[in-house]
Amino acid sequence: MKHVTRIQDLGPEGVEAVLSQAAAWKQKDPGAIFPGKLLGMVFFNPSLRTRTSFEAVMLRAGGHAIVLDVGSGVWKLEDRPGAVMNADRAEHIKEASPVLSRFVDMLGIRTFSQGGGDEEDEADPVINAFRKWATVPVVSMESAREHPCQGLADALTLRETFGTTKKLPVTLTWAPHIKPLPKAVPNSFLLSAAAAGCEVRVAHPPGFDLHPAVRAEAEAYARATGGSITYTHDQDEALVGSRAVYAKSWGPTAQTASTPTDVAALLASYSGWMPTRRHMAKAAKDAAFLHCLPVRRNVEVADEVLDHSSSRVVDEAGNRYHVQRALLAWMRGGGF
Amino acid sequence: MKHVTRIQDLGPEGVEAVLSQAAAWKQKDPGAIFPGKLLGMVFFNPSLRTRTSFEAVMLRAGGHAIVLDVGSGVWKLEDRPGAVMNADRAEHIKEASPVLSRFVDMLGIRTFSQGGGDEEDEADPVINAFRKWATVPVVSMESAREHPCQGLADALTLRETFGTTKKLPVTLTWAPHIKPLPKAVPNSFLLSAAAAGCEVRVAHPPGFDLHPAVRAEAEAYARATGGSITYTHDQDEALVGSRAVYAKSWGPTAQTASTPTDVAALLASYSGWMPTRRHMAKAAKDAAFLHCLPVRRNVEVADEVLDHSSSRVVDEAGNRYHVQRALLAWMRGGGF
Amino acid sequence: MKHVTRIQDLGPEGVEAVLSQAAAWKQKDPGAIFPGKLLGMVFFNPSLRTRTSFEAVMLRAGGHAIVLDVGSGVWKLEDRPGAVMNADRAEHIKEASPVLSRFVDMLGIRTFSQGGGDEEDEADPVINAFRKWATVPVVSMESAREHPCQGLADALTLRETFGTTKKLPVTLTWAPHIKPLPKAVPNSFLLSAAAAGCEVRVAHPPGFDLHPAVRAEAEAYARATGGSITYTHDQDEALVGSRAVYAKSWGPTAQTASTPTDVAALLASYSGWMPTRRHMAKAAKDAAFLHCLPVRRNVEVADEVLDHSSSRVVDEAGNRYHVQRALLAWMRGGGF
Repeated sequence: MKHVTRIQDLGPEGVEAVLSQAAAWKQKDPGAIFPGKLLGMVFFNPSLRTRTSFEAVMLRAGGHAIVLDVGSGVWKLEDRPGAVMNADRAEHIKEASPVLSRFVDMLGIRTFSQGGGDEEDEADPVINAFRKWATVPVVSMESAREHPCQGLADALTLRETFGTTKKLPVTLTWAPHIKPLPKAVPNSFLLSAAAAGCEVRVAHPPGFDLHPAVRAEAEAYARATGGSITYTHDQDEALVGSRAVYAKSWGPTAQTASTPTDVAALLASYSGWMPTRRHMAKAAKDAAFLHCLPVRRNVEVADEVLDHSSSRVVDEAGNRYHVQRALLAWMRGGGF
Repeated sequence: MKHVTRIQDLGPEGVEAVLSQAAAWKQKDPGAIFPGKLLGMVFFNPSLRTRTSFEAVMLRAGGHAIVLDVGSGVWKLEDRPGAVMNADRAEHIKEASPVLSRFVDMLGIRTFSQGGGDEEDEADPVINAFRKWATVPVVSMESAREHPCQGLADALTLRETFGTTKKLPVTLTWAPHIKPLPKAVPNSFLLSAAAAGCEVRVAHPPGFDLHPAVRAEAEAYARATGGSITYTHDQDEALVGSRAVYAKSWGPTAQTASTPTDVAALLASYSGWMPTRRHMAKAAKDAAFLHCLPVRRNVEVADEVLDHSSSRVVDEAGNRYHVQRALLAWMRGGGF
Repeated sequence: MKHVTRIQDLGPEGVEAVLSQAAAWKQKDPGAIFPGKLLGMVFFNPSLRTRTSFEAVMLRAGGHAIVLDVGSGVWKLEDRPGAVMNADRAEHIKEASPVLSRFVDMLGIRTFSQGGGDEEDEADPVINAFRKWATVPVVSMESAREHPCQGLADALTLRETFGTTKKLPVTLTWAPHIKPLPKAVPNSFLLSAAAAGCEVRVAHPPGFDLHPAVRAEAEAYARATGGSITYTHDQDEALVGSRAVYAKSWGPTAQTASTPTDVAALLASYSGWMPTRRHMAKAAKDAAFLHCLPVRRNVEVADEVLDHSSSRVVDEAGNRYHVQRALLAWMRGGGF
């Protein structure tokens, strides 16, 4: 039984297999490859693209999705072993995960960082509790550490745009926001791009480092695939010669050590990092622009970048469908 | 590509085509006319009838609906061009609409008035943003200006009850409520009934006029179909000789100019407008009673009217299914 | 047209028929027995198991479920006849129930106690309003008085574990909690176990009596099936020789007479009732442990009991699927 809740579950070979299958099936629809199969989708957090694209994958392949919203349609769930459950979490994942496994053929889990800091996010307790206790395959729809389906969609979009991702110079740049965001998306872009052999440049202000374990894992993928990764606090330096620019905001390292006011001031102090056409002009001619969406226009990215013909953000979101279909098939050994 | 977010998108000929098809298919089920097709339903506001009837249409015709609740299951969406998105709206419809278009075959949107007043409602910014940026057909499930599917269900119910709607005397009467409601439903009844050739009498207290643009549009339909429209502040006068009475509450004109307390007092001052059997006795013998539902019993309409054999409100709601099936087929040129 | 909102709708013969069919179909999947049929599911309260298991039943049998969340996706509903609806309940079940009946083939309703006390729970006004006004069969997904599908799953689990339920000694024991819970689940276990012929021992602290009408109904089933029921305030006495232990918390009798502080203190005073392995050791060797879930670990039941090999709680939840499939078929005379 294969779970996929992080890029490591695929490795560079798995990433390659999923991207190839996704591209092939995008050209030629495989039809009802999941006939009568049920994907249970558990959302601890809101979703637009993920919910719609996963359900569309299942329905168009002859299956179905059952959607559960934790905290509105469902009570809150406990993940801590040995907890004395006398507060607001009314059910333990130790029951919820195996019980749901009785009713569906696969479980998709969406859970964000719980705000406990970088080490807790790295441990990814909620999705790992589901994974531990499920008796059916678990797929991540984004968790505290990673958003692997987004990373795969990003890599597919790069491959479609440039023919290959091998040694492709791409910049992952930090961008401003009104609040500190989780690092799952930048982590996944970094890991996927490294696994796809890109020459990745990561640019962010001081104090916004990605977790050492993520960086070490990405470095290993780069070595295996002939790619490379560099880090800089100089956004301009990173952009020069980049064929693609991936913008994303994330919170400062060890953010639990700062007050909300400190964090807001810190984020505001880097408003110049918001990509504009002036920034894009530093990259290669006609460099592609990517973002995972949702994007706060004119805070995180300027209208003029998102509305420019070089923006691939809608295609990138559309590719969520294609990589997810291929990923579910890969997890089930070619189908259900 | 046909969008239908207002009766104007159909015109009298389209209204006629949809009503005829709905009536025909109500007699003889057309079966799986939308095989494997996906309707994405985006709800900015709660719904019972609309959600259930649209999903039932898709499922019984061999397709599926994917339901998204904005603000609970999905974050809030921005509709304003050029907005600096530094508040609670986390995604722009400029992205959400084309992205959702990648995953589904048609989009249904439900959004109420945002409380910005009559001119904003007339401009209908949210549904028009979806319409502008979608790459699949958009159907209204009610917006600030209109609720076209309700208007079509109303007209089908009149036609079923009386055989024809041509020159049928019907009264649209304002009714009391605990708060000012949007005008989408009275607008849609007026426009649909005019497009179906009715002799419409609109009765409401002073200060509750419908928007001039809606009235002008309805007038044009009445001229084209041989119908007529009159307006009065005298409820009794309107009721005399009416074959059908359509009750609905709506807020005062330019309601943003009044305080909530003023509006509540204004609404309370017209409690005598609540339809009772005494009111119905002024209309034609066995006049049909209609209301779009939900209805606040004994505030908006008396129990004795809703529970009387002349009430068609449940049949009217049931007709939502039939007109929506015909409408989606019309939008897709006979099917998907 | 058969509604099933309480065990009385089945009686001992119906219970037997459903359990036999559930067991048979669990061994041999009956396939698409509800082709194209729609179950409308109306939730007044959150749900995990119920929502997923009912939707899975419909989907795997070739049908579909439409899910409505009252109070989030849908406005609040009124159940009181003659109500002047000037508060937060925007639609009466007198409309909602027949309207939904137009769109679906069967209605499932989930509603908890409204906190009005034991007599109101016994009258079960919300689900009875749906039942009264629906024009399609209504199935309970738990209401104020009962949770019949849970009771049926409990009985099936006992039968699977022990081969028969006839004269099986089983203890239903009250357990601690952080707040007073409804009595629907203990009522349903008692009624189902009695209808299945068990020798039921009910143990609870003084002041937590089940409603006299429920006890009288269970007594009648026990007489008809050769089972028996005894009540005690001595948990140890009940456990001795029990082959199965069913733990569940519920609130004190006439709980509306007490302040929240009094109730919390009362619940806390019986923390020794929480099942541990020490408690289980008093029952028969290898006695099975059951609970309806969700369970608050280390408040209601100790980890060591839930994690022991004798715990059947996940199988019990899994059986919800099997009894519900058989129940829907029974309600429709063998299918749809």
